[in-house]
Amino acid sequence: MIMAKQKKAPKPKALPPKGFRDYFGADVSERAEMLRRIADVYHLYGFEQLESSALETVEALGKFLPDVDRPNEGVFAWQEDDDWLALRYDLTAPLARVYAQHRNELPSPYRRFAMGPVWRNEKPGPGRFRQFYQCDADTVGSASMAADAEICTMLSDTLEKVGIARGDYIIRVNNRKVLNGVMEVAGILDPSDPEKFTDERGIVLRAIDKLDRLGLEGVRALLGAGRKDDSGDFTQGAGLAAAQAEVVMGFMQALGATPADTLSNLRRLVTGSAIGEAGVDELQQISELVTTQGYGADRIVLDPSVVRGLGYYTGPVYEAELTFEIKDEKGRPRQFGSVAGGGRYDDLVKRFTGQEVPATGVSIGVDRLLAALRMKGQLQSAQSGPVVITVMDRARMGDYQAMATQLRAAGIRAEVYLGNPKNFGNQLKYADNRNSPIAIIEGGDEQAAGIVQIKDLILGAQLAKEASLEEWKARPSQIEAPRAQLVEKVREMLAAQGAAQ
Amino acid sequence: MIMAKQKKAPKPKALPPKGFRDYFGADVSERAEMLRRIADVYHLYGFEQLESSALETVEALGKFLPDVDRPNEGVFAWQEDDDWLALRYDLTAPLARVYAQHRNELPSPYRRFAMGPVWRNEKPGPGRFRQFYQCDADTVGSASMAADAEICTMLSDTLEKVGIARGDYIIRVNNRKVLNGVMEVAGILDPSDPEKFTDERGIVLRAIDKLDRLGLEGVRALLGAGRKDDSGDFTQGAGLAAAQAEVVMGFMQALGATPADTLSNLRRLVTGSAIGEAGVDELQQISELVTTQGYGADRIVLDPSVVRGLGYYTGPVYEAELTFEIKDEKGRPRQFGSVAGGGRYDDLVKRFTGQEVPATGVSIGVDRLLAALRMKGQLQSAQSGPVVITVMDRARMGDYQAMATQLRAAGIRAEVYLGNPKNFGNQLKYADNRNSPIAIIEGGDEQAAGIVQIKDLILGAQLAKEASLEEWKARPSQIEAPRAQLVEKVREMLAAQGAAQ
Repeated sequence: MIMAKQKKAPKPKALPPKGFRDYFGADVSERAEMLRRIADVYHLYGFEQLESSALETVEALGKFLPDVDRPNEGVFAWQEDDDWLALRYDLTAPLARVYAQHRNELPSPYRRFAMGPVWRNEKPGPGRFRQFYQCDADTVGSASMAADAEICTMLSDTLEKVGIARGDYIIRVNNRKVLNGVMEVAGILDPSDPEKFTDERGIVLRAIDKLDRLGLEGVRALLGAGRKDDSGDFTQGAGLAAAQAEVVMGFMQALGATPADTLSNLRRLVTGSAIGEAGVDELQQISELVTTQGYGADRIVLDPSVVRGLGYYTGPVYEAELTFEIKDEKGRPRQFGSVAGGGRYDDLVKRFTGQEVPATGVSIGVDRLLAALRMKGQLQSAQSGPVVITVMDRARMGDYQAMATQLRAAGIRAEVYLGNPKNFGNQLKYADNRNSPIAIIEGGDEQAAGIVQIKDLILGAQLAKEASLEEWKARPSQIEAPRAQLVEKVREMLAAQGAAQ
Repeated sequence: MIMAKQKKAPKPKALPPKGFRDYFGADVSERAEMLRRIADVYHLYGFEQLESSALETVEALGKFLPDVDRPNEGVFAWQEDDDWLALRYDLTAPLARVYAQHRNELPSPYRRFAMGPVWRNEKPGPGRFRQFYQCDADTVGSASMAADAEICTMLSDTLEKVGIARGDYIIRVNNRKVLNGVMEVAGILDPSDPEKFTDERGIVLRAIDKLDRLGLEGVRALLGAGRKDDSGDFTQGAGLAAAQAEVVMGFMQALGATPADTLSNLRRLVTGSAIGEAGVDELQQISELVTTQGYGADRIVLDPSVVRGLGYYTGPVYEAELTFEIKDEKGRPRQFGSVAGGGRYDDLVKRFTGQEVPATGVSIGVDRLLAALRMKGQLQSAQSGPVVITVMDRARMGDYQAMATQLRAAGIRAEVYLGNPKNFGNQLKYADNRNSPIAIIEGGDEQAAGIVQIKDLILGAQLAKEASLEEWKARPSQIEAPRAQLVEKVREMLAAQGAAQ
């Protein structure tokens, strides 16, 4: 394949680029299965799948700095003739381009979902790759809170469909406008001069975004003079007076026993702020909508302590958290945590058309949700290897393949060993590598007698580890069956293996 | 999103890069559904899915010319720090890199399939895009003809699984070694000096590759002195003597009434050539293997006229053709033609490891097969739009969403109109754009009476086009139903629509 044959080139390294990896077998099929179930729910809700091109012009992505000859860090971009091209770094920027391009033909509102790889030109690290999957659903062109409420119920249905039981997750809803109202009441947002207090608000936003890590006391310190961390480093605070800070603290602690309590707590906090009251109205509408549809507090709750994304979104924000316990790196119990988040944003296509188009949407953390499903044992079925038919007589390949054909016709995954059959041990090693549940053996003696040997590799491995002699005898890991009963006996053995697990 | 705020930048163009496109709704879900069915069959055969990274180093792809500062035309490649990176241009080059990298952990033989986009930096044209899907299955590390036979039966099963009926396709098998034997007998291949007659063989290969277009007479001319085409242009021939040319012509016409006839025709042609006889033996093995498994001449045939890929592959080649008739651009009937092809190649990982590893595999033309399934009406189910619940009273959004929830719980795709509900005509236009089969209407009067209106949009459109007054009366396109029977009545109407189509 090397074109320049004159010099003998050194052998190329068999490695992907730094920060990239390959996915094998069950890793691919499990993700595909999860995404398919998600797509089924989104489709049921009337969302249409969109697959945009992996490449965009840098101009359309909006990452191009006119005064430097290279686009921003963070994206893979290069010059191709007169254009700068880039690999998409998320699925929202392409949605903006597609909606702006096709807005006259697309339904309005436009409900779309998208799932696929995105690329980030960032320093790779352990578990951090430069290509990963995103899975987004957005409704473009509707300002109605019903659009946000629908995303929340859809997210709830989705989590249950992929295998997260009710009670193991909760969807929390908050609203940026309520926070803005709180800021206004606290005196760090002036609706008549929105640029004023920008620095203070920035510090407040970053502080409440750290609630999880710093706790209420830590956030309180950052709202005031500042905070010294364990290492002695000092972080400058927002400099709010005690009364101002209390308003912000009240926001994060406004969760009541019922949605009505929460709403009335919030309404009290934002009294006098038009934007704050509008935000509480929006929260109330979402709460009523999902309640009317039967989604109670076991699935969707209002929660003013949800602060992630409040800096980015313009109205409702929502987050799905898995509430079951796992162990952290140090063995301490903690909740699994967030697997999806989203909210409302209004400048989706403004760069292209000058018009503000309201939009709301959610993004599922594909790798995190997959990890959760693996922990919950929801993805095992895809992992089982094929039945391996061993080759005792090279001249009878057709007969062995016919066995595989029969098994497949019964829906049983099966394959014939295709390596050099001379060393039978290699064939069993191969079956082991393939994670095979069963091996079939038919040598000359068996053929003459019209039988096959069916070897239970899972039971065999168990027995080899732990069985007493009596158990070995009582539960033979290999049975003989008439050739005509091959499919039936394999099916029985697979069922017994499934029941034993 | 533009970082440089000082100058007001012109609005970006809302377009993908030249040669790229977006896929919407059914175009995405239909392809996904087809690939899922293909994956199911491949999985059943014991193949494991591999998803390699979209990016490779140019070094690993093998397209780097050391003496120029840019990689070959044809790939998207760019320099990133010290590395040249490139988007994969097919799924075989990444397989070679992955197999070389992981060969010690992968099962041997390694059966893998892969499906996903590839990128070509070529001049785009009508219907020719620079990003498109490939779908490959390969067995690496087995020299056994059983591996090739298995690919052929798997391809047959796959075509039937995606919706091509038996009789509407045929899988043809040929062998490069037989052609080499024919060349040897014709005196243009000398096993003791393989470089000799390279030019002649090149012309012969190109000539028989044009069999479809030029016919036997045209190929015959190119084997001899040469050929003048309709425009008067002359193509230099291979200069074979009549007797030599007859051997090659015999190869392309060796198809007999039975596999045994074909094999004996070929065996006669290659008598005396070791490589040719080995090729006939291989064909015979494949023929016997698939026959033993019950795949007869209605599914898989030996066919010496299959010449596509003979230049590239080293042993068996196979091709799946759809045999049903379609009309070409000029309205003339022709067969649909090839949708998949493959064969055996032995230098997969040699660039990386120095070792020859035998491999055989097939690639399905994703877009062509999709087009065939659309023609055959095999993909319609995915295209139906959602039931649209119209909004008559903005304050009752929760009730409308609850209707959608009920319909979805019954597996019926449904959505509430989320635009401005003021103009009811816009809501029906929206339903039309969404390709909705049914609209639900519940205003104040209906609510008071405990009923809903269920509007049959498909029948409505039909009646609007062609119905007489009597038909209008006899088959009302809108029915009234008790609210409690919403799901039942919608299901009945959808069933009636399905039956009427």
